[in-house]
Amino acid sequence: MKWQWQVLGAVCGGALLLGAGILLGHFAVPRAGGGRDPPRWLQDASGDLDEKLIQDVMGQVESARIRENLRVLASRPHLATTPGDRALVQLLRQRWQDPQTGLDGAAEGTYDVLLSFPDPKRPNSVSVCPPVLNGSRLFESQRSEKALTPDQAQEDVVPPYAAYAPSGSPQGRLVYAHQGTRSDYETLVGRGLDLNGTIAIVRYGGAGRATKAVVGAEFGVAGLVVYTDPKDINDGRAGENDTYPNSWHLPPSGVERGSYTESFGDLLTPYHPAKGTAYDAPGHPGIPPIPTQPIGFEDARTLICEVQVSVYNQRVIKKSANVMGFIRGSQEPDRYVLYGNHRDSWVHGAVDPGSGTAVMLEITRVLGKMLKEGTWRPRRSIIFGSWGAEEFGLIGSTEYTEEFSSKLQARSVAYINVDISVFGGSFCTSLYPSNPCGQHAVPFAVPAPGSGTGSVYDNWRHHTNRSSPTYGVIPSLGSLGAGSDYASFIHYLGITSMDLAYTYDRSQTSARIYPAYHTAFDTFDYTDRFIDPGFTSHQAVARTAGNVLLRLADSLVLPLNVSDYGEALEGLYSVAAQGQVQADLVAHNISLAPLKVAIDRFKTIAADFNQRVMKLKEDPLEVRMVNDQIMLLERAFLDPRAFPNKYYYSHVLWAPRAAGVPTFPGLAEAHAAGDWDAVRKHLSIATQAVESAASTLEPPA
Amino acid sequence: MKWQWQVLGAVCGGALLLGAGILLGHFAVPRAGGGRDPPRWLQDASGDLDEKLIQDVMGQVESARIRENLRVLASRPHLATTPGDRALVQLLRQRWQDPQTGLDGAAEGTYDVLLSFPDPKRPNSVSVCPPVLNGSRLFESQRSEKALTPDQAQEDVVPPYAAYAPSGSPQGRLVYAHQGTRSDYETLVGRGLDLNGTIAIVRYGGAGRATKAVVGAEFGVAGLVVYTDPKDINDGRAGENDTYPNSWHLPPSGVERGSYTESFGDLLTPYHPAKGTAYDAPGHPGIPPIPTQPIGFEDARTLICEVQVSVYNQRVIKKSANVMGFIRGSQEPDRYVLYGNHRDSWVHGAVDPGSGTAVMLEITRVLGKMLKEGTWRPRRSIIFGSWGAEEFGLIGSTEYTEEFSSKLQARSVAYINVDISVFGGSFCTSLYPSNPCGQHAVPFAVPAPGSGTGSVYDNWRHHTNRSSPTYGVIPSLGSLGAGSDYASFIHYLGITSMDLAYTYDRSQTSARIYPAYHTAFDTFDYTDRFIDPGFTSHQAVARTAGNVLLRLADSLVLPLNVSDYGEALEGLYSVAAQGQVQADLVAHNISLAPLKVAIDRFKTIAADFNQRVMKLKEDPLEVRMVNDQIMLLERAFLDPRAFPNKYYYSHVLWAPRAAGVPTFPGLAEAHAAGDWDAVRKHLSIATQAVESAASTLEPPA
Repeated sequence: MKWQWQVLGAVCGGALLLGAGILLGHFAVPRAGGGRDPPRWLQDASGDLDEKLIQDVMGQVESARIRENLRVLASRPHLATTPGDRALVQLLRQRWQDPQTGLDGAAEGTYDVLLSFPDPKRPNSVSVCPPVLNGSRLFESQRSEKALTPDQAQEDVVPPYAAYAPSGSPQGRLVYAHQGTRSDYETLVGRGLDLNGTIAIVRYGGAGRATKAVVGAEFGVAGLVVYTDPKDINDGRAGENDTYPNSWHLPPSGVERGSYTESFGDLLTPYHPAKGTAYDAPGHPGIPPIPTQPIGFEDARTLICEVQVSVYNQRVIKKSANVMGFIRGSQEPDRYVLYGNHRDSWVHGAVDPGSGTAVMLEITRVLGKMLKEGTWRPRRSIIFGSWGAEEFGLIGSTEYTEEFSSKLQARSVAYINVDISVFGGSFCTSLYPSNPCGQHAVPFAVPAPGSGTGSVYDNWRHHTNRSSPTYGVIPSLGSLGAGSDYASFIHYLGITSMDLAYTYDRSQTSARIYPAYHTAFDTFDYTDRFIDPGFTSHQAVARTAGNVLLRLADSLVLPLNVSDYGEALEGLYSVAAQGQVQADLVAHNISLAPLKVAIDRFKTIAADFNQRVMKLKEDPLEVRMVNDQIMLLERAFLDPRAFPNKYYYSHVLWAPRAAGVPTFPGLAEAHAAGDWDAVRKHLSIATQAVESAASTLEPPA
Repeated sequence: MKWQWQVLGAVCGGALLLGAGILLGHFAVPRAGGGRDPPRWLQDASGDLDEKLIQDVMGQVESARIRENLRVLASRPHLATTPGDRALVQLLRQRWQDPQTGLDGAAEGTYDVLLSFPDPKRPNSVSVCPPVLNGSRLFESQRSEKALTPDQAQEDVVPPYAAYAPSGSPQGRLVYAHQGTRSDYETLVGRGLDLNGTIAIVRYGGAGRATKAVVGAEFGVAGLVVYTDPKDINDGRAGENDTYPNSWHLPPSGVERGSYTESFGDLLTPYHPAKGTAYDAPGHPGIPPIPTQPIGFEDARTLICEVQVSVYNQRVIKKSANVMGFIRGSQEPDRYVLYGNHRDSWVHGAVDPGSGTAVMLEITRVLGKMLKEGTWRPRRSIIFGSWGAEEFGLIGSTEYTEEFSSKLQARSVAYINVDISVFGGSFCTSLYPSNPCGQHAVPFAVPAPGSGTGSVYDNWRHHTNRSSPTYGVIPSLGSLGAGSDYASFIHYLGITSMDLAYTYDRSQTSARIYPAYHTAFDTFDYTDRFIDPGFTSHQAVARTAGNVLLRLADSLVLPLNVSDYGEALEGLYSVAAQGQVQADLVAHNISLAPLKVAIDRFKTIAADFNQRVMKLKEDPLEVRMVNDQIMLLERAFLDPRAFPNKYYYSHVLWAPRAAGVPTFPGLAEAHAAGDWDAVRKHLSIATQAVESAASTLEPPA
């Protein structure tokens, strides 16, 4: 949903789950040998990943099936909890319960969550009413996007709106406030403008949606209009001939919808699953403060002088479903590999989230077929999630993590998220990972799509890379913000998470995101003609994600390298130990030495740990012990008291850093605020987290 | 340390670790059979507890050795961090590293913690200075206890003081304020007294030490004098002939020392181990507000009119040591059974804590001998802790849980605490458990001490019991407050904990606690002659605690019964569903139905779980899976956000209930405060915790 945050995360460059280098072959465990045959279950318990299986699975992933999945998924609008969404719930259940290609089981979990919809009787609008006209309107914004293909004319296309924006019809002078960041508003005030009672018009990008409204309200702005600028999304193209259906560019009438909440999860029930029994938090933190309406650039171009923003959004509690699919693990059923994507979309959602769900369904078909034929069952359990109401604030996935927090935290090996699986069209060339699904090339023995040679891994490394002291030049990783359903897994529960996508070549476009994002033009036709004709990029993502999934589920020793975490800690540290941050710390007599000592100790202990892993014997309990240490390393960086004012954020390394300095987030924020007592506190928190994490990797006895 | 809280807990009657019925024999796991021999490690991995071993160990526990331990332990004062304490650190290390009877290893962990001591140059005092005498003093309190045996005359006997009380010499009218509870102070104000600027004299008991000062300060009290009333401690005896060394009663000069902090752990570093790297929390929450001094009843008797309390306590950061002893587990080295007691005392501390340490050293001697002889090694690892600075606020144990929170939470099966192991003398008759170390009689096949027949279990059930729907009449359990080192294990980390002691027969004495508690008369001689001549009660505690320890360490399936938790939940619920609480809930339209549904579901799932446990097969991974579910059940009741204003308290069932209503603590407090929004919130928190806990017991896949 919140694309801006993803981009921000990637720019910050912090690497998530740096622990996750998939180290293949390194840790092969000697099988039981000698004279007598060990019992059958023991052979199974000590069995390792079958590389041939990976090749088989990759071979079975068909681009034509992914295309057909997407055609069905995007055949009608499916805004969360609407009939289109319910129809997809049924489709997923049928697929996952299919006798030939289904999983072990599938179930639906529903939550009563607060959503926000336009009033069908009173359309929202942005209208121009100059005082001289005495109440009559010079201009009124379009109520829906133009029907350039039959998709936009379908029933159930929700009119453009800003979800959760309060109702109201403020009227006032229109002020252009660029991206609606704090510095944008400050610039205007600095130039002598009085923003009180004005309507601000801002473009998408540069700050999260909610931020534009929250900060604007602080400056007295009475209403907000948000538009998509062709410069940001269309490489400047704005004419009808240059835009969809003639290209992938956004038509003039296209409007990006979105949720304007500040936090995620159901707003009424933070930390509680939104069941009948949950407590309604009073005050509803996270609701944006002022009436807000998004418009397209066609309308934005004509706006002048007095403007009225009329918003009639209604907040309503609706039943939102997650659909869960299960594969029981043969040896360690109590260890979970999670794989998910949301199901709901603003309109047809072919790219967001259809591209991810089409891929997930192809992976589950291939695995389900082997299951039903009896040729395969994973060592660990696999849980697939089709999350509801993500577009409103990651609601379905967050409620799920709330409801099952204890067992998910105790048992989850990792969470793989594939939301928008393919952003770019024929010029797709790089893998956008928020997670190191491999410092090592093996899992990316997946051929890259398109005419070029080489693997997905080569392609990724070519487009975005960094120099690692251990591995040389390797792909660089983004960090996970709150852009999709991984947020509550990594930030709230401390579960190792990753997010995969094929994205575009930045030398080919400067688009902030694919142009039809969150509009009525994000359709199957749009994907089929412009995003990924032939669906080969989708196929490459399916192969890559399936490959990683199988390795996590089947490898005897978990394919995550704890030493990579040391490199990441070093990276966070080095930013604090240089430039302005270092100078300010010295000036306030604050030493980084204890943190440095802790990080060095972590690295030594992690290296020793890897040595011990190499010498593992056959005993399944010994393997389990080592795997538990690997699995729980990420959890050791959680501190639920570190950021008491930020809902859900508990991860000492990966919490958001609004300050933008890519070091430990508590330190970054406290430094930016000039709060030296808080700097000391957060240094202590970070040092303790590193020491605690290191101690989990020591020999347990 | 805080005896009042323990008593309060016992009165409240909530049961801790109700899950812990030791179910022996029920879960015997079939061994690998059939034609071929399984590998040696597999036989070991599936081996269960050896009952003969338990009998052997119990037979080896010698009362004479416990007596000799105590004689050495209590031979000189050993206030935390003083030379006497350091000498005991060396003693423990030597014992645990002994070539014949030592453990696998021992280590010292030190923390830099804030302690508080009297100024050696300026003695604290309580003095009477009537205005007519114009500054000269009519009376001054005794600076130390009378030397009735050589012990009190030893060097290093710390003068009576209230640890952490601020320095100052307030002077004012003396007001008798009973126990210094809120209602006591209110009564005085209600009778027209102006408490501003007064010195309050209060007796020990009825409220925690800190409470007397904190609440007094709220009413304007300028200084506090706390004395021990013979009625509360000596069954009324106050004469020299009736008191020690002629009986176990407290001599007139005896003064109960104690710590007056509100919270526990190092006050400067809540949630952080007090290492050089920890952040000093500003403001030092927990420091008592007014100068305070304890006195004996001899002095208390003579006090009149204008009084001056002169306190010159000094706060100082000292290095405090924990001594840790280790036994490596053979099959599951990454599962920990913890056993501990504090080492520091106010003076000689023969009863508190020597009686517990003498028992612990006898247990470690017997186990160490078997280890060194090669006849035994436990399935799981055992960690022994000799905690430092407990008397100042459970500091050593709390810092330990802070430093290793991640791995302790992931790996600890249970924590056993034996602090004061024997409270009573020859009339000892009941076991004081804060934990159900057995709904089932097996572990208490330990003969009771004394002339009577029957087991410890029979004795316990005879003196304190309740009727269980499942088991009939069984011993009743106290709940664990913050009276000893179990506090951070259970409340902060959610680790199943228990506390064992032999206590007195309430038909024989009404003493609030054993009379020499926290005075210079708590000596070896006092124990040897009055508390437990012959040390048979100590022996019974050692056998019981050792028995429980071995069962937790060696049983293939953890001897904790999850179904007992259902009964406890039912108990907490039933209090809310009746009387005033229920009436008030109905009046405010608040339903308990969701909580009831959750508890019923928990009970069903727990019963199913026990059925599955009975059918366990040989696979060690399957056994481990079940054990993990048992071990982590207690953790599922943790919610670090449930009580944001109470340091460390995170356990939704066992957090303190100042309100005194024995139901869910958040509910009890919110109800007592008449905060109906908070009642709704805490009902939701409790319901979710029960649901989450239940879901951890479902089949994992």
